[in-house]
Parts: sequence; C-alpha cells; structure tokens
Amino acid sequence: MKWVKDLKIGLLGLGTVGTGVYEIINHQKGNYFASSKERAIITKVLVNDINKSRSINIPPDLLTNDFNEILNDEDIQVVIAVMGGMEPEYSYMLAAMEKGKHVITANKAVVSEHMDILLKTAQSNNVSFLFEASVGGGVPIINSLNQTLRINEINEIKGILNGTTNFILSKMTYEGWDFDFTLKTAQKLGFAEADPTADVDGFDVSRKLSILSSMAFGAHINDDMIYKRGIRDVTRFDIDMFKNLGYVLKYLAHSKLENDTYYMTVEPILLTTKDLMSNVNEEFNIISINGNIIGELNFYGKGAGKDATANSVVGDLLYIINSEFKKIEIQLDKNLKNGGISGFKGNYYLRADVKDHDEFSLVLDIIDEYSIKKKMEFSGKKLYIITEEMNAETFNELAGKIKSANINNFYARIH
Amino acid sequence: MKWVKDLKIGLLGLGTVGTGVYEIINHQKGNYFASSKERAIITKVLVNDINKSRSINIPPDLLTNDFNEILNDEDIQVVIAVMGGMEPEYSYMLAAMEKGKHVITANKAVVSEHMDILLKTAQSNNVSFLFEASVGGGVPIINSLNQTLRINEINEIKGILNGTTNFILSKMTYEGWDFDFTLKTAQKLGFAEADPTADVDGFDVSRKLSILSSMAFGAHINDDMIYKRGIRDVTRFDIDMFKNLGYVLKYLAHSKLENDTYYMTVEPILLTTKDLMSNVNEEFNIISINGNIIGELNFYGKGAGKDATANSVVGDLLYIINSEFKKIEIQLDKNLKNGGISGFKGNYYLRADVKDHDEFSLVLDIIDEYSIKKKMEFSGKKLYIITEEMNAETFNELAGKIKSANINNFYARIH
Repeated sequence: MKWVKDLKIGLLGLGTVGTGVYEIINHQKGNYFASSKERAIITKVLVNDINKSRSINIPPDLLTNDFNEILNDEDIQVVIAVMGGMEPEYSYMLAAMEKGKHVITANKAVVSEHMDILLKTAQSNNVSFLFEASVGGGVPIINSLNQTLRINEINEIKGILNGTTNFILSKMTYEGWDFDFTLKTAQKLGFAEADPTADVDGFDVSRKLSILSSMAFGAHINDDMIYKRGIRDVTRFDIDMFKNLGYVLKYLAHSKLENDTYYMTVEPILLTTKDLMSNVNEEFNIISINGNIIGELNFYGKGAGKDATANSVVGDLLYIINSEFKKIEIQLDKNLKNGGISGFKGNYYLRADVKDHDEFSLVLDIIDEYSIKKKMEFSGKKLYIITEEMNAETFNELAGKIKSANINNFYARIH
Repeated sequence: MKWVKDLKIGLLGLGTVGTGVYEIINHQKGNYFASSKERAIITKVLVNDINKSRSINIPPDLLTNDFNEILNDEDIQVVIAVMGGMEPEYSYMLAAMEKGKHVITANKAVVSEHMDILLKTAQSNNVSFLFEASVGGGVPIINSLNQTLRINEINEIKGILNGTTNFILSKMTYEGWDFDFTLKTAQKLGFAEADPTADVDGFDVSRKLSILSSMAFGAHINDDMIYKRGIRDVTRFDIDMFKNLGYVLKYLAHSKLENDTYYMTVEPILLTTKDLMSNVNEEFNIISINGNIIGELNFYGKGAGKDATANSVVGDLLYIINSEFKKIEIQLDKNLKNGGISGFKGNYYLRADVKDHDEFSLVLDIIDEYSIKKKMEFSGKKLYIITEEMNAETFNELAGKIKSANINNFYARIH
C-alpha cells in the first residue's frame, strides 16, 4: 500500500464555529485534494475542559487543553483559530506561524487589532494567514476584496455587517415590535448576547469595517479610530415615521478615502426603499466595494451562523491546500490621516421628546443656531424635523446639545 | 543586466472588451508579478483590418490579421479571446490550448455551446481555460461559483443577467416610458443592438444561465434546452398595474435541480418590492446561488461595459500568473433529465386586450377551463386577472390559447 500523506490540522476552540468546521471537514472526509489518497484531517482540538459534554461526537483522544501539544506537533501544518477573545488566541496564532504553520482564523477582534503584525509574521515565516470568516460570516468578502485590489483602487466601502442589529431593525420595521422586546427576543433566539453592547453599540461592526478598510486603503486603521453610534435610542415612533417618509433604517458601516484622508462611520442611516441595501433583512449581511475600474460590487449572504461561518474557514483551508495564494498580498504601509466623520453629509431626521414648552423652545433654539429647517412637525410631545443638507460633524454637535439638555432624541442621516 | 522573463499574451479581437483589456494591461504596465522584473505584455493582436482607424493608440507592428502568427509564436503563453461570435473563435481557442497556451475568453456563445469540450481540451493539455467575463460582466460569479462548489452542493441559481432588458424595464418602471421608446433610447445610448433579439427574447440570458447551471449541476446543459420568453409584450398599462399591486417586473433567469431533474426558465417575473432583486436597476446584474452549507449568496455589479468586463478578463490573467488554479475543476459528467418549466409554480398576472364582447367571453371561457380566478378587473377593453397558484406549464398552455385567438396579452408569474 502506498504511503498516504495527509494534511494535519490543529483546531483551537470547539464553540459554535469550531464545531461547524469539525463537522464539515469530517462529513466531507477531508476530501479536498486532486488525489483521493490525500485528505485533510483534524488531529488535535484545543478545548478548555476535556471532560465537558458536547453536542458532537468527537473522539476523546483528539482533545487537549495544552496548546503546546499542537504547537510542538511537527505533523500539524495548519492551525484553525476559532476560540474568540483577544488572548491567548493572538499569541497562539503568532507562535504557530513562527513554527511554520499556516493560520486560519475567524477572530475579528484579533485581526482588526493586530492585522499588521499578523500579516508581517506570516510573510517572514512564509506561511499563509487567512481570515475570510472574520468579516461577514459566509460572505466571501475578504477573498473578493483581495482579488479586486490586484487590479483596482478601492476608495469606498459600505455595508450592513452585523446580524443582530439587522435582525432588530428588521423586526421593528416589519413586525411592529419595539426595541426592548426585539432585543429580548433576539437574545432568546440566540442571535444576541446577554450583554448586547458589542452589537448594538457598534463595536462588532467597527472591527469588521477596520479590517476591510485597512485592506482596501493600505494602512492599518484600528477600530478605535472609527466613529460609532448605536441604535438603542430608536423608537416605534421613529420607525413609523420612516415608513411614512419612504425610508428604511439600517445600521450602516461606511468608509471613504479621499487623497490621504480616510473618513469612517458606523451609525444608523436612513435609506430610500429603492436602495439595494434597504431590502437586506434579518441575519443577512451585504458589503459594497467601489473599484476605480470595475465600479460597484456588492456581496450578500449570511453574516453569521455555524455553517456559513465554518464554510468560510474551510474555504480558506482549500486555498492553502491548492496553494492558490500563500498570503494575503496586502501592504499596510501607507501614511493616512483620520478625517473623522467630516467627509459625510446629508439631510438629517431628528426626533426629540419635549416634555413642556421650555424644552420645546430650547430644541428650536438649538436648531435655529445651526440650520434652516426643511420640514418640521410636532405632535404628542414629540418634535421631529428633517433638516437641509448638513455636514455630519456639524449635525452631531447640534444633537449633542439636545442630549446635554437631557432631552430624549434619535437622529439619523438620510443616505 | 539580468534577463527579464515576461509573460507574452496574444489578444484575439480589438472591439470594446479587447480595447478595455489592452488599456488596463498597458496602463498598469503588466505589473502583476511579485518581482518587478517580470511583466505581462500583449505582443500580438488579431484584427480583421490592420489599417482601420482606432480609438486607442496601438503600435502598428502589434497588429496582425493572421491567427497563425499568434498560434505559432512559442513565446505567447496566454491567448485572450474576445472576438465574439461562434467561429472562428471557437476553433482558435481549441488550437491555442492544443499548442499548450492558456486561454481566457469573454465569449458566452462559445462557452455555453462547447464548455464540455473546452474544459476537457484544457485538462488534457494541462492549461487553464477561464471565462469569468462570459457571465455577468464585472460580477465575479464564475470564480465565486467555482469556490463555493468545492464545499457546497448548489441546487438553485437565480439572477438578473442582461443589462439591456434591465435598463428597459427600469426606465419603463421609473421614467414612465413605453417599450418601443425605451428600446430606441437604449439603442441610441449603445446599450442595445440594432437587432435586439438576443437581448429582449432571452438568448443572451439563457447562454449565461446555461454556463452557470452546467457548472453548478455538473452536466453540460446547452442553452437551447432552456425555456425562454421575452419582454416585448409588456405595456405601460402592465407596468402601472404592477406599481399599484406592489410588484416590480424583472427579466429573471432561474434554474433548479431536484434529484436528477433540472428545471430552467428565462422569463419576465414579478417580484415584491421587498425582494433584493427588485432594487437591481439599469445596467446592473445580480446573481444568487444557494449552497447546502453556506445558504444564499448574492453577487451584484456591472453586467456589461468595457472596463468592468475587461477587469474580469484581467482577473483571469492574474489567476494564471499566480498559478492559483490551473483549471476550473468542474466535472460535467452527470446524467440529468430536463424537467422543462414543470418545477415552477406561482400566482399569475394576466392582461388581455379584448376588442369586443366575443373576445371578452372567449378569454373568460379559457380562464374558466383552468382555474379559479383570484381577482379580476375589466376597464377600457383591458381585462386583467391575478390567478390562484398554478403550475408554470399549465399556465403557459392557458396563455397559448389566448395568443392563438390573436388576442394581445402579457403575463408574468409572481415570485
């Protein structure tokens, strides 16, 4: 019998994505090679607790709680890192690459924070560092962006990048639910975490926008450089207004590069019902990139979930197997300036809950300081206006003054 | 000085796409290699008339009207075939591969008719045969489908695949134009050919659906196996009705595989305004594929145009340069049955122009033969109905009887 050379894989983490990856590779018997004599096999799995009961049937001798068993196993050529959190996963990825192992990850926190060092470490050790599953779940955006960048300059990225907030806004829009009930339902269904901060306040989205924009613009832009504003303040009143006005509220990530300055924002945005993204609902994601030659491309698919995310991880594994690209050939060496949100402008919707005549006058005074009202209505102690076109920085200053006066409000730019 | 090894390319055709390819490669100085010492260079261009005046500045000594100058040039490793039409381009592609040259094409007619033989010829000569630009212009669907198929089974494909008809339907819907005026405008703008048959009667779309479905389902399904019905009969009355009913008319390609039977159709379809595809307008294309693991993926971009299509051609060139995949690893060896359109069903919209009481009664009699009317209205000699759910074959038989009676009509299934 001929000696069979298999590709041996160490899997870090057996949570939702790790379980999905294990299931796909085992179900397909690792049969990803031109020759049926070779297979991809997960030979070790790092877990916290070896004895924990699990939803899948996995041979106990595969499990280990010692990363060194994977790191020092010279037969393991690929490490799939799907633990989550910053450490120890970041250190494990670096250590694995320094030992000559290819690394695939779905960990957006680590990639957005350290992509520069991770890509350099891959390059200097001549291994692959691939992270398709870190943005957009099953949407093949990292690969598509990488391909498009070989021919195009990309100066704009837009997207709906978070399934939890898109689920919440879809249900509020089409089921008539309010924010708190929708969030609780999302938590019950497992779409939202017990602490929803990362999702509803924009931290998750800004990490994804950081990864995409860094690749596209050629400089490592950390997610703490990105302006982010959450969706907690939106009410049923607002959603009903948007319907009447012909708009749909979406939680949008948007970045632009103009000369050497980037502008980035993660905030609720009003889209017309004619906008492609206005029909992206529930847990689906969409990402739009704009190339100087190819024009606008959009990629749509499941932004999360075990199978879709695991599919992206296994897709990266196939790149390594086929030696299609050994590394993401992105240079992050440009010197760019952060222009904040000053590159964005538009008409604004603003709703303020005014308890009495004094608050009413105060809000009007603030508005008068800044802009001519385009349209204003007042009913049931709720004042709402649509402004003329304003710069995002200027409008945020205006809204800040209303907030400072302890007046409940919600606002969104019209795209 | 070190010897510089360049990648030499023969370009067949210098029409719109050929000019775009020439411009991109020259503008970027063929600088697609890791080492700046190597470049991709177009060294010969096949044209009909060497002396014709051209929109681009091209050295006259590159031009030839003899294909053998390219075929027998052993330095030429890649042939880019963008002439259009069936022959002689098909024979040229086969001959080039038999001489060990990689072939890239944008010619959907040749690919849909002969993909089986072309892929086999590539395989037996150990060269690449790539055709990203043959479907969806700048939309990277062939590569994405190829990648997705390595992990998934794909049993459904849907899409808006023709820019001309999508331009016509968009203008009729949003500008209030009628069919003839819109077609004439599209012709003036260069979006539509003088003879619009290939576009408005579905031949162009069915070739693209043939290519995608053959890849996805694993059998060569020639485009003449696909049911196709054009958009010539749609009127302003219909478009206004769709608006009132909350639908948007799109020219949709749709294929499904169930067990060993495929169902394929190219026809006008009514989408609700909540459907992602209802917001795909003008010259844009969208393609949806459904994988058993990854779920639904959608790809959106410019479906035609010099730069977008040329971008896809150059993208294929980069695959060859990076040796990322030497061939599309698609097997077309399955034995499948053609189920026609019997796999599709839905409610139908039907409008019939009835000149007098006799025609009115005749149409009602035909309808009564088949189905219970869900909703019916009659005004200004126009009768329109929305049927209950019906099988596509059954409804087409009904519509055929109305057509046979020489009664003008238009119908579309509601998706």
